[in-house]
Parts: sequence; structure tokens; C-alpha cells
Amino acid sequence: MKQAPKIVILGAGYAGIVAAIRLQKELQYNEAEVTLVNKHDYHYITTHLHMPAAGTDHPENARVRVQELIDLQKVKFVKSTVTEILLAEKTIVLESGKLNYDYLVIGLGGEPETFGIKGLKENAFNIRSINSVRLIRTHIENQFALYKQHPDQTEYLTLIVGGAGFTGVEFAGELADRIPVLCQTYDVDQSNVRIINIEASPTVLPGFDPELVKYAIDVLKHKGVEFKLGVPVKECLEDRIVLANGEEIKARSVIWTGGIRGNHLLEEAGFEGFRGRVKVDEMLQPAGHENVFILGDCSIFLSPDGKPYPPTAQIAMQEGEVVAYNLMAKIRGQAMKPFKPSIKGTVASLGKNEAIGFVFRFKVTGWFAALMKQVIDWRYLYIIGGVQLVLSKTLFKARW
Amino acid sequence: MKQAPKIVILGAGYAGIVAAIRLQKELQYNEAEVTLVNKHDYHYITTHLHMPAAGTDHPENARVRVQELIDLQKVKFVKSTVTEILLAEKTIVLESGKLNYDYLVIGLGGEPETFGIKGLKENAFNIRSINSVRLIRTHIENQFALYKQHPDQTEYLTLIVGGAGFTGVEFAGELADRIPVLCQTYDVDQSNVRIINIEASPTVLPGFDPELVKYAIDVLKHKGVEFKLGVPVKECLEDRIVLANGEEIKARSVIWTGGIRGNHLLEEAGFEGFRGRVKVDEMLQPAGHENVFILGDCSIFLSPDGKPYPPTAQIAMQEGEVVAYNLMAKIRGQAMKPFKPSIKGTVASLGKNEAIGFVFRFKVTGWFAALMKQVIDWRYLYIIGGVQLVLSKTLFKARW
Repeated sequence: MKQAPKIVILGAGYAGIVAAIRLQKELQYNEAEVTLVNKHDYHYITTHLHMPAAGTDHPENARVRVQELIDLQKVKFVKSTVTEILLAEKTIVLESGKLNYDYLVIGLGGEPETFGIKGLKENAFNIRSINSVRLIRTHIENQFALYKQHPDQTEYLTLIVGGAGFTGVEFAGELADRIPVLCQTYDVDQSNVRIINIEASPTVLPGFDPELVKYAIDVLKHKGVEFKLGVPVKECLEDRIVLANGEEIKARSVIWTGGIRGNHLLEEAGFEGFRGRVKVDEMLQPAGHENVFILGDCSIFLSPDGKPYPPTAQIAMQEGEVVAYNLMAKIRGQAMKPFKPSIKGTVASLGKNEAIGFVFRFKVTGWFAALMKQVIDWRYLYIIGGVQLVLSKTLFKARW
Repeated sequence: MKQAPKIVILGAGYAGIVAAIRLQKELQYNEAEVTLVNKHDYHYITTHLHMPAAGTDHPENARVRVQELIDLQKVKFVKSTVTEILLAEKTIVLESGKLNYDYLVIGLGGEPETFGIKGLKENAFNIRSINSVRLIRTHIENQFALYKQHPDQTEYLTLIVGGAGFTGVEFAGELADRIPVLCQTYDVDQSNVRIINIEASPTVLPGFDPELVKYAIDVLKHKGVEFKLGVPVKECLEDRIVLANGEEIKARSVIWTGGIRGNHLLEEAGFEGFRGRVKVDEMLQPAGHENVFILGDCSIFLSPDGKPYPPTAQIAMQEGEVVAYNLMAKIRGQAMKPFKPSIKGTVASLGKNEAIGFVFRFKVTGWFAALMKQVIDWRYLYIIGGVQLVLSKTLFKARW
């Protein structure tokens, strides 16, 4: 009996989980042996993380146990951290052992890009995982409680959001919604709290439609968010941030959303990376590696006009679908299909009942945009887990 | 027209608030001008603070706004901090100004007694106010979140309760109840969490009935609390505690409940203090000060056999009642009455549905003792605020 080819999927993020779910659905018995490797025994919904980070929704609503999504009879799951990718040996080194593969799918996601800014790695928080956002929430609440012991030290109540891309803007909006509750719980005068969004580009959401950008700024300013645009951060210390223009802002909470780079393991494996991300062809494969697919935030896929698509959940999911298709094609000796991203919409939330974006090329703002954002979230949950998952993750919103 | 005598009450703790409420009820129009001075615009229920400290009840259930208890038409309320008591000038110096009095009631409460243990003041937390217990809750939650970033450093999950008196034992019980929830929320293996209760005396609840002490130890051990009895603490550092026997325990959370002393302002005013507490006669007056009453934790009242009564809420409330009576007697030229404490019961909670104590000389344990504890709490709320306050503070228990 011929042995079934081994497919190893690294990472259960948007791309990896969708690829695994699709393979589990389509593969015939014994057609391939699929192994999914992930650091945690849960998949998390990165686009939702700004909410538990601010404390406006429970982190349980931003994650799904892998076993709820994967049929462990069909897909093997290994909870471990990848430490090395040995391409020549077709071997993955894990903290808990080794794995061999015939086909490799790398969906290991990104890492915070600090652009070499001093102190950022040590002193700033990142919205990048369940663990990291739980820490942001507890840290901020602790600052409010500490402030009551040091009422002259406003750095406890100054919250810096570094970067005004999607995550930065969404987090700032959510945080602004959360502040009144924190002020009430901790007896803090709200006028002492500052949320400052700092961005090196001259605008928030660089590259986005100017009319929507203006709308977003107006909404966030109205909620109390201050902006410092066109000012790069020079250094981040424990109790203050130093800007390139020399200005210093005392603050004990800096949440850095200034960008991501690809997972370091790819460059270490010998791939050429652009900020850690590896260029893939239209089959989502890196040049010269016929049995490897790279997708999601650690890959770069170029649009026809030569620009890289942004590292979004939407693209990652679609890549997961295509990679699953192409893996089956390879196994069955059929033709692979090229990846053709289809951007259905892009909506950024600005806190409760406010959002901006595009849905099928239509500009949307306000409550309708917020509803569209909700629909996008529901759609994703439906794709990976059906109606049951939609209900279990959205019926109960809870501050925590 | 004769000017009404000025009564100034310092502190809206158990003793002060009860005295103010009683005076407001009994005094005739213009018989006296009563002023209540307190640091916060709320009274807090010290015996309930171990719950919000652990996170098992919301801090709002441990405090009542002064304006809900005091008729501001009858009693003047000044929210300020006392900085000096000038007995010779019959003047109180506040952060916000000065007050003159004809009669002074001092109910300024206690301060944590550190027994000169190095680092305790800087690195340990105290269960002594709404502000201090909110900080304990946020600090501990933050440790759980930090642990996920440093899974090899167990000091994030080691919680030290210093002192096994009433507060220490009640807090340890409550904390033990809270741990499973924290472990679930932060994905922490409960076997990595330690609660260690350290006490210099050879037993918990020194002086209490041995049978009940054994019951308490058994209940708490069963909940996972470890005990180190008969071992004084030598030093408290940011990341560990050093015991007198040389043992070091790595821990980033030390909650010190090892005792209280009287407010420092009394000794500074010239009173002779025993650990800051001033001895009062049976009318609750210090020797040689006919127009001053001292009550609650900053006073010492001796029992007939010469032992001081413990600094409890029960005694403080009864003192508040008697002082109100005696003030009216003085104003009306009538005879004062001596203070005769009546100990109705003493119950220590050990977390959910567990407690031990005495009620009218009967030993109680288990759920019945827990119910008695609840009744005692209800009774107090009823005395100061009626049925409405009982309902508003007890109907809704909430982790926070």
C-alpha cells in the first residue's frame, strides 16, 4: 500500500485554520495525512483582539478551541512551538519533537515591527495574541488603581496608541469607549485621562480614502482621542515616550500597533524576506520550493500592478482556501489554480456603533458601517464553525 | 441668641458614621452644629473589603456615599483630610482649611502595623480602604497576565497573605475561591498557584477557640491555602519575602494583614498612645480632655479584667452610639452613660458558604456560620441605612 503523503500546516491563524478545515472536508480517506501545528490549542480572531485588549469584550469571544474546528480523526493536531524549519530535510523542529512532511504550508503569521525604535520591544505592549491583550487590559486597570495612590502622577492615566493603521484606530476607538467605565470603577476624574494616538505618517489609516479618514478622525476626537500625526516615535521608556521632534510624553502604557513583519523563522530557514515576509507566486509558493506554500502575514502576494496586498484576515482566509485546493490538486496530479484575491470590503471599527470602510466599493460610515463590520465578523465565524460558532461568540458580550 | 455648640466628628468609619447618624436623629433644631469630616465622600465597610480585594465582590458593595447616610441639612459634611489636631486651640487643621470645635469626636481609625519589618511599607499591599483593595485586585490579575509572558517565573503566581488574624484568614478564604476563575480566564494551570498564609503566632486566629481554629485551618487547607505558622516575616522585597527562619519565598504579591495601630495624628496631637491607640475611660474620653471623645480603632477601651477590647466594627459601632448619647447629655447638662460593650457574636468568613465563630456564645461553623456572617452584615447596613441599603448592597454580587 502506498503511504499517504504528509501535509504539515504550521500555524492555526486565519490562513492555516481555513486550509486545515478545507482539507479535512475535501480529502478522501487516506488520501493524505494532515498535521496542524500551533503554539496554542486555540485559534484566535486577530481582528477582534482590540476589544479584549481594551476590556470591552471578553477574550473568550476572540478565540475558538482548535478541537471545536478540527475533526481530530481526520487532521492530527500538535500543540507545540516551531523552533526551526529544515527545508532540505523536509523536517520541522518543534519544542516537543520533530515532524517530517511531503508538503509544507507555512502560516506562522507576523511579529510586531519595531522599526528599530529603542525600548519599544521592552516597554510597549502589542495587540497580537490572547496572552498579549489580556496583559494590556490588566495593565491598564492596574494603572487606574495605582493612580489613586499617586494622584499627582498623570503618567498612570496617559495611554499611548502607537500607530494609526487599522489596529491602532480600532483600539483607540474601543479604549475611548472603555474609559468612562474605568473612571467610574476607580473614582477617576475623566478629564485626567488621555488617549494619544501617535503616527509617523501625516494621516491616520495611510492610503485610505481621505473622506473616510476625516470621518474617522472626527469620531475619535469626539470620543476624546488626541492625535499626533506626522511624528515618528524615537524612544519608549517605562514611564514616558520620546518623539522624533524632541517632545516627551509621560505615560506608563504604550500600545504599539505600528506594523508587522513576517515571522523570523522564515528568514532563518533560508527564504529571502522583505521585512520578514516571503514573496510567493500566484500558486502561493516561494520560488524554487515546489512542495511549500506560504500564506498569510508571513507571505507577500503582489497585485497585478506590482503592489503587495496588505496583511489582512480577508486575504489570509482566501489564501487558505486556494492552498487547500492546490494541495489536493498536487496529490491528485491535477492542475493547481492561481490565487485571485477578491476584496469584498474593508471596514474599520471606531468603537461602539461607529465604523468606516468600503463594502463592495461603496463607502460606508456610522452605524451601518458598524453593522457591516459585525456581518464580516459573523461571516468569518460561519465559514470556520457554522451557525453554532457565530452564536456562541457573539450572543454574549462582556466587559471583563 | 446663644450659639449652638459645635461638634466635630473626625472620620466616617463605623464609629464616626454611627455617631453622626444618631446625632442627626436625636438632636433638636439648633441644639448643636454637627460637622462630619472624612477623607472620602463615602463610608466604607471595612469588614467587607476582603471580597473586592480578592475580586469576589464589586467594591461598590463595600461602600456607601456619605450623602446617602447623612441629611446634609442637619449635619455638615466636609470632604477633606485631617493634617493636625490642635487640642489647646480646639482647632482641626484640614488640607482644605481649619475647623473650630466645642466637642471633638475622633474616629480616625487605624493604620497598618508593620512592626518595623523591612520593605513591608514599600512592597506589601494592605486591606484598608477602597483604593487599597482595588489595587490588590488589579495587581493580582496583572500578575496572572504577566505570568503568561514569563511561564518559568512562579513568583507571579505565589500570593502571600501576611498575618492570620481575622482579615488574613477571611482574605485567604476569598482568594482561594477566586483562583479557579483567574486560572480559567488566564489559561493558568491551577497547580502552579500558591496561596501562603504566614503568621508569627503558632496558630491562626490567635486567642480564638481551638476547635474553631482547627475547623478554619482544615477548610482553608482544603481550598488550597498553605500555612506557615510560628514564623515571623523578616523582610519583604519586590519579588520575594524573607522569613525569620531564613527561608525565602519568591512572590510578587504580598498582602499584609498583620495588625493595625492607631492613626498617627493622635500621638502627634499629644495623646499618649499604645501602638498609636489612646486609652479612654468608660465615657470613651481620654484622661484630662472633657470635651474630647476617642473611639474605634484609634482608642483602647479596657475590659473589667484589664484587657483591651479588639479593634472591631462591632465595638466601634456601639461606641458611636454611646458617644452620641453622651454628647447630647453634655449639651443638655444631663448625666453621661458609661460604655458597656455587648459582644453579640464574632464570625469570620472562610470564603463561599464557610465560616466559623460565636453567635451569642454558641459556636457556629459551616454554612450556618456563613449565614450568620451575612446576617451580621445585613444588620449593620440596616442600622446605618435601613432596608433600602441592605437591598442595594447585597442583591447584586459581582466579580469584577
